[in-house]
Amino acid sequence: METLNVDLGDRSYPIYIGSGLLDRPELLTDHIAGQSAALVSNTTVGPLYAERVARHLTGLKSTEILLPDGERYKTLEVLQQVFTGLLETRMDRGTTLIALGGGVVGDMTGFAAACYQRGVDFIQVPTTLLAMVDSSVGGKTGVNHPLGKNMIGAFYQPQCVIIDTDTLDTLDDRQLAAGIAEVIKYGIILDADFFAWLEANMTKLIARDKPALAYAIRRSCEIKADIVAADEKEKGQRALLNLGHTFGHAIETATGYGTWLHGEAVAAGMVLAAEMAQRLGWVQEEEVGRIRTLIASAGLPLTPPEGMTSARFRELMAVDKKVVGGALRLVLPQAIGKAVVTADFPAAALTETLNAATQ
Amino acid sequence: METLNVDLGDRSYPIYIGSGLLDRPELLTDHIAGQSAALVSNTTVGPLYAERVARHLTGLKSTEILLPDGERYKTLEVLQQVFTGLLETRMDRGTTLIALGGGVVGDMTGFAAACYQRGVDFIQVPTTLLAMVDSSVGGKTGVNHPLGKNMIGAFYQPQCVIIDTDTLDTLDDRQLAAGIAEVIKYGIILDADFFAWLEANMTKLIARDKPALAYAIRRSCEIKADIVAADEKEKGQRALLNLGHTFGHAIETATGYGTWLHGEAVAAGMVLAAEMAQRLGWVQEEEVGRIRTLIASAGLPLTPPEGMTSARFRELMAVDKKVVGGALRLVLPQAIGKAVVTADFPAAALTETLNAATQ
Repeated sequence: METLNVDLGDRSYPIYIGSGLLDRPELLTDHIAGQSAALVSNTTVGPLYAERVARHLTGLKSTEILLPDGERYKTLEVLQQVFTGLLETRMDRGTTLIALGGGVVGDMTGFAAACYQRGVDFIQVPTTLLAMVDSSVGGKTGVNHPLGKNMIGAFYQPQCVIIDTDTLDTLDDRQLAAGIAEVIKYGIILDADFFAWLEANMTKLIARDKPALAYAIRRSCEIKADIVAADEKEKGQRALLNLGHTFGHAIETATGYGTWLHGEAVAAGMVLAAEMAQRLGWVQEEEVGRIRTLIASAGLPLTPPEGMTSARFRELMAVDKKVVGGALRLVLPQAIGKAVVTADFPAAALTETLNAATQ
Repeated sequence: METLNVDLGDRSYPIYIGSGLLDRPELLTDHIAGQSAALVSNTTVGPLYAERVARHLTGLKSTEILLPDGERYKTLEVLQQVFTGLLETRMDRGTTLIALGGGVVGDMTGFAAACYQRGVDFIQVPTTLLAMVDSSVGGKTGVNHPLGKNMIGAFYQPQCVIIDTDTLDTLDDRQLAAGIAEVIKYGIILDADFFAWLEANMTKLIARDKPALAYAIRRSCEIKADIVAADEKEKGQRALLNLGHTFGHAIETATGYGTWLHGEAVAAGMVLAAEMAQRLGWVQEEEVGRIRTLIASAGLPLTPPEGMTSARFRELMAVDKKVVGGALRLVLPQAIGKAVVTADFPAAALTETLNAATQ
């Protein structure tokens, strides 16, 4: 087992990464301060792993809450079901919520913890690659609104993150690839060596080679933990983590949450960001080619969905959270391993990029 | 105009108290950092005052969101309407929400600000006595759940609180009395001199004597600001502010939110707390008598609603946020001007108090 630390002063917490961690009760119980806990999962993951986690809660008052599976259920209405479950079992302010599942379960459980009785503890137990390398680390929690993704939420940090890499055995190929999109992102924005490692090892990752997956997870979490420690509330550098996301959120909103997986939308979004950066003369054709090749080798989409127009992209991108004072800010690569957050580009560059990609 | 300060480090903020403050644009605009603002009010207060506030927002992108009036609309469903209004007008992360109204509008707008795009600024402009002396100060925000009051929310501080005492002119007598309940509370828990002042001046307060109301508001805000500065997240002393509230919330939940006003339920709850303290031998009959007399002189109820049983009280009180580790903690007076938060009482004392009061 490896242990990383997210350094946030009195809200610091460990990330445990390894095989067989669901069978180690102390990882969970050492981080439960009160006398009760609620396990929140979904109807897909719950039947696979809930029992293995719940058996560590003997001696505590506990309950299980199963949510419907899928991004389209990441809503305020479904969140209310979590609160109802907690209140029906009379969970008090000292309770701990345990998020067992992918990004949707983690985001919703974290937000429920942020709001229930104005704040209770929670623990992340991610079971998808996407959640392991991205959404379970860093404290972004929330739900979607019909008019925009992740528009309602809180910055709220967990007590710990427990990543049992064995849970990837039950993840389907499409979900695995979606997680790899976020792994590739870290290489593009901050770590050229890691990008090169991914080029050399993508075949292994797709084949679920355990050591390769473990290394990719650890390196991704390290990069994310460093960024979050430096900029918890996304006043600056943290926004780099949104490479491809502004385009990607527009794709998710346009197609209806859950049609495209988040990672798939981010993959197509990263290609758009790279193409726009090339159009601006910031990156070379050769680098854009490497990005496209790596994304394609993971089995991820390179282009937006059929029928999605340039105009629809721009309409949806105008409500993105990265809009400040009316100006759209985008994360754009300057090289492999280096990206910037900027509103300093001609509007035509965006329009032309979208026009070219949506014909 | 008087200015108090709530001292919370880098989240400190001023409370402005005086006549005619709605006509002073700088109080508002000095605390709006971005280029947009959304005025949130309800269908009762909006028509009276929204225009006077909104005219100070010229030069900013702005919108108005009117909510239905009443505690029964303090729900996650109605909160969604606020998010929809903000998204439809494409308010970004730099926007400021302005809560114009009573406690429900303030609690909901504050919670909306805490969650919208994971946190935007907000300003409290309370127009009821209850909101002026209690709910607008201190950062407790949230909504009700069918199974419990204020069960979903956040601690989230405003940029400032603007109390224009002239707005009390349009407040009906019952709402005024409900606000006085919270004013009396400050006297009981912390300030015997203020309690005596209230005994001497209750006739003036009921008659809406301006200087008397202004003093009562200022002293109440001072006490609350001091308590909040010492214990923002209610780890200790702040719980004193809940005198009468655990009983009162049970009354509100049992009767359906909005049947009894919050202040009315708190008034009856404070009498129950005093009676229980007397039963425990902590306060004298004479002091309980003074509390009952002062509450009655404000036109507030002394007894729980007809038909509410002792068993129903205990059932509803078991999910109160003041429950920690399964033990019910209550705020009980030890004298006029002194109260404690305690779970250290025989269960029989609570049962007997409730039995006696609900026959």
